[in-house]
Amino acid sequence: MHIDPEQVPAKTGTVYPEPFKARLAGRSKRRLGDAAGLKNFGVNWVALEPGAMSALRHWHQRQDEFIYVLTGEVVLITNAGEQVLKAGMAAGFPAGEANGHHLVNRSAALATYLEVGDRTPDDQVTYPDDDLVAAAGDAGWIFFHKDGQPYSSSMSSV
Amino acid sequence: MHIDPEQVPAKTGTVYPEPFKARLAGRSKRRLGDAAGLKNFGVNWVALEPGAMSALRHWHQRQDEFIYVLTGEVVLITNAGEQVLKAGMAAGFPAGEANGHHLVNRSAALATYLEVGDRTPDDQVTYPDDDLVAAAGDAGWIFFHKDGQPYSSSMSSV
Repeated sequence: MHIDPEQVPAKTGTVYPEPFKARLAGRSKRRLGDAAGLKNFGVNWVALEPGAMSALRHWHQRQDEFIYVLTGEVVLITNAGEQVLKAGMAAGFPAGEANGHHLVNRSAALATYLEVGDRTPDDQVTYPDDDLVAAAGDAGWIFFHKDGQPYSSSMSSV
Repeated sequence: MHIDPEQVPAKTGTVYPEPFKARLAGRSKRRLGDAAGLKNFGVNWVALEPGAMSALRHWHQRQDEFIYVLTGEVVLITNAGEQVLKAGMAAGFPAGEANGHHLVNRSAALATYLEVGDRTPDDQVTYPDDDLVAAAGDAGWIFFHKDGQPYSSSMSSV
């Protein structure tokens, strides 16, 4: 099935609970894989406005992730430090590798990239810089404080 | 892990048995996902020279597939006919959808795209236009004639 990304609705907002939502301002996603009817993995076309980030810095226990920069440039931040990724560069984040990562657009121009992630069940997500842990539930991600207390209204569809 | 696609070896050739190998001339792949240590899905950067094709026309029983055109243009061929996909266009092929597909570069310029596929086990591949069936084995794809006879030397690592 052929997909024109411009015909796929751009979705802003995030499933993160408060007080984290505001930090995802300026990010929008088009769910190309879902639009094509794929189930085993997702492929999103993502746009980051200047100053926006891909996600809170995190790593997945069971799901692999991959990104490919299409236009502009982003800064990849991991435990190893920072690296500028320009259009045509890629990065992969193997499941279970305890190295939190995210992308930040520190440029003055829009940056776009493709992100791919599989849907292996029973995943958990660790956020090393924030009081946040996520567990995959039947209806989406469930968010907890690091002491195990759930965030209120934390059940959200992904 | 950051990946520079140009540093990932370009691989030509195919795991198809004879007499199909020659039809894949002009195709090269860089296995970006593997280079990043991903296991759950593969992401390949693929280049098609003028006249080259992505694969024999086929569909997967259990594995989803997705492509995103990076440069140039390709013709997507499915049961529904032909469609030109230019840079920035995408297509997805859900597992189990009995609609053989492939990409052909009918232009005079190189075309490049990203392809994504998951690694769900016990997959089978149907090739509607050719006397060929593939089954996922422990060490790669095993190829059969449509009457069930194996191709000689058909075990190949993927």
